[in-house]
Amino acid sequence: MATDEARAETVSGRRGRVTITDIARRAGVSVPTVSRVVNGRSDVSPGTRARVEELLRRHGYRKRAAAPGRRAALIDLVFNDLDSPWAVEIIRGVEEVAHAAGVGTVVSAIHGRSGDARQWMRNLRARASDGVVVVTSALDPVLHQELRILGVPLVVVDPAGAPDLDVPIVGAANHSGGRAATEHLLALGHRRIGLIAGPPRLLCSRARRDGYRAALEDAGVAVDESLVVPGDFRHESGFAACATLLGLPEPPTAVFAASDQMALGAIEALRRRGLRVPQDMSVVGFDDLPEVRWSAPPLTTVRQPLADMGRQAARAVLRRTRGEPADPPRTELGTELIVRSSTAPPPPPVPATPSR
Amino acid sequence: MATDEARAETVSGRRGRVTITDIARRAGVSVPTVSRVVNGRSDVSPGTRARVEELLRRHGYRKRAAAPGRRAALIDLVFNDLDSPWAVEIIRGVEEVAHAAGVGTVVSAIHGRSGDARQWMRNLRARASDGVVVVTSALDPVLHQELRILGVPLVVVDPAGAPDLDVPIVGAANHSGGRAATEHLLALGHRRIGLIAGPPRLLCSRARRDGYRAALEDAGVAVDESLVVPGDFRHESGFAACATLLGLPEPPTAVFAASDQMALGAIEALRRRGLRVPQDMSVVGFDDLPEVRWSAPPLTTVRQPLADMGRQAARAVLRRTRGEPADPPRTELGTELIVRSSTAPPPPPVPATPSR
Repeated sequence: MATDEARAETVSGRRGRVTITDIARRAGVSVPTVSRVVNGRSDVSPGTRARVEELLRRHGYRKRAAAPGRRAALIDLVFNDLDSPWAVEIIRGVEEVAHAAGVGTVVSAIHGRSGDARQWMRNLRARASDGVVVVTSALDPVLHQELRILGVPLVVVDPAGAPDLDVPIVGAANHSGGRAATEHLLALGHRRIGLIAGPPRLLCSRARRDGYRAALEDAGVAVDESLVVPGDFRHESGFAACATLLGLPEPPTAVFAASDQMALGAIEALRRRGLRVPQDMSVVGFDDLPEVRWSAPPLTTVRQPLADMGRQAARAVLRRTRGEPADPPRTELGTELIVRSSTAPPPPPVPATPSR
Repeated sequence: MATDEARAETVSGRRGRVTITDIARRAGVSVPTVSRVVNGRSDVSPGTRARVEELLRRHGYRKRAAAPGRRAALIDLVFNDLDSPWAVEIIRGVEEVAHAAGVGTVVSAIHGRSGDARQWMRNLRARASDGVVVVTSALDPVLHQELRILGVPLVVVDPAGAPDLDVPIVGAANHSGGRAATEHLLALGHRRIGLIAGPPRLLCSRARRDGYRAALEDAGVAVDESLVVPGDFRHESGFAACATLLGLPEPPTAVFAASDQMALGAIEALRRRGLRVPQDMSVVGFDDLPEVRWSAPPLTTVRQPLADMGRQAARAVLRRTRGEPADPPRTELGTELIVRSSTAPPPPPVPATPSR
């Protein structure tokens, strides 16, 4: 803590880049309280106001200028991690729109670490970016609040939790995508369908799972919770979740994985056991990353228009930087089932029961 | 052309963002001539100098200030295309180093189109970035020259052609990587080894190919040029090249593909013909993208330290923006053979010839 404090001191001393949160910590008050002082609101006690104002002055806090003439011609694009192939799809879409508008796209990763997020916020203030696109809610509520105070337009792609009502959101039609994947497997004759779900804290994971459930219910197939195994969207978790499903007394005949990477991990788990896709088990993914056309076998998946989501988010944030009318608060771009070679009818049942 | 001209006029009129190339075009002289005028050199005829100086003045050309106090805390990272999973690896490395230094990474794609490159150069001038990292030589010589005139430090990752002597370069040990891949196949007993090469205009492709040849020659295996098929590093070209190799009167028993994406395309071509990897054909890639651990089968490949190359390039450009001593002109990071499951000894020969 002492070193953090010292570093903040240095940073603020050097270029006046102290943040609202630094001030709040020093004053022993909440960030919204500092925000009320900065914005000249009356609902702050005189003692608190004096203390906060003194700190703001002493540390050279500058409210970000929103004058159009001072535009930096930059937008910030913030990820938790730059480690998945879908990040490049989002970057591609954002960059394309920003580039055409003469605006640079500053790409950052904050690794879900508050230290990195604070550093990013300081950098953002220093470069006076015109707007921010955040992917999968990389920022915590305090930083969201700080952006609001700074008056920097924000757009969120694929929010994690319940979204702020006043922040535009760009997402995909996750529920109907989950439903389409499951209906495809049902139409092929599968009745025991496993789900390798995404992290339950993310809205997009929950929507895909709910789409899966809705399709089963509509088909009159009872949802068996033992067939739902959570993952984290990465290969490793798909591999492990598939192994869990295969270890069940009655394994599924098909698996819907809520990301392509988990689907590829599942296929590898099957391959290592000598099981063939799709003859022994069908697998459906979600995303349609460019490389899954080339997986073995090419993957049936739900296409998420990632580059379009990036384009849409960039357009929304650029409109807001120009003070143009706000977009609809939530834009949901369509998803689409792409049928390739990883899905087929289920294998004939092993016990000699009469077929339906 | 008329619309281009009009747009350049608008741009220069708006914010004085005219470039050296715009001036050269208007003056009807070469870019180096304008550069000589800007830099006050004497080897320009008086008439030309007067004409160029008038244009520079009229269009508000500003030589970029190199004063450390005016640093924008930005570096530009320029790709031809943001469409391959390895781009995100490079971005990750550059961003990590820049972020820690309080510097933003502006990511751009110029699609090998001169219009996009010109637009990028105008944007770069407007945001006064401190330095530029260019990947696989996305810029033509005119833009390189313009950056030099502007005094913006430049570092090139994986140069395309013969590199400029005064630009630091970061690359991978491509020759020894190509050699290691081929030696691995030779050690397994393969003698007919196909090469799916990268674009011949790129230095890295040529170095990988030469490493392949060197390994064959050292093993006393004659290089058969019919076994060398060019690709463009993408899946499709690996798929097509593998089909070409399989159509030869005597196909190879193993293939070294100069990128992972081409290796995955080759595996898919084999799968569609009912050939198994590695039992019927061994495949080695190059890159070690994260996803090839999960391909079917997991890919034997040459690891290229892409994120490290990004880190190294970012460090080099940041050092140059601070006026610190120049790096060695060329840094070559090591490559490493990663053996997974896509390689095995060759199948027994089909005709009943005595085995060696």
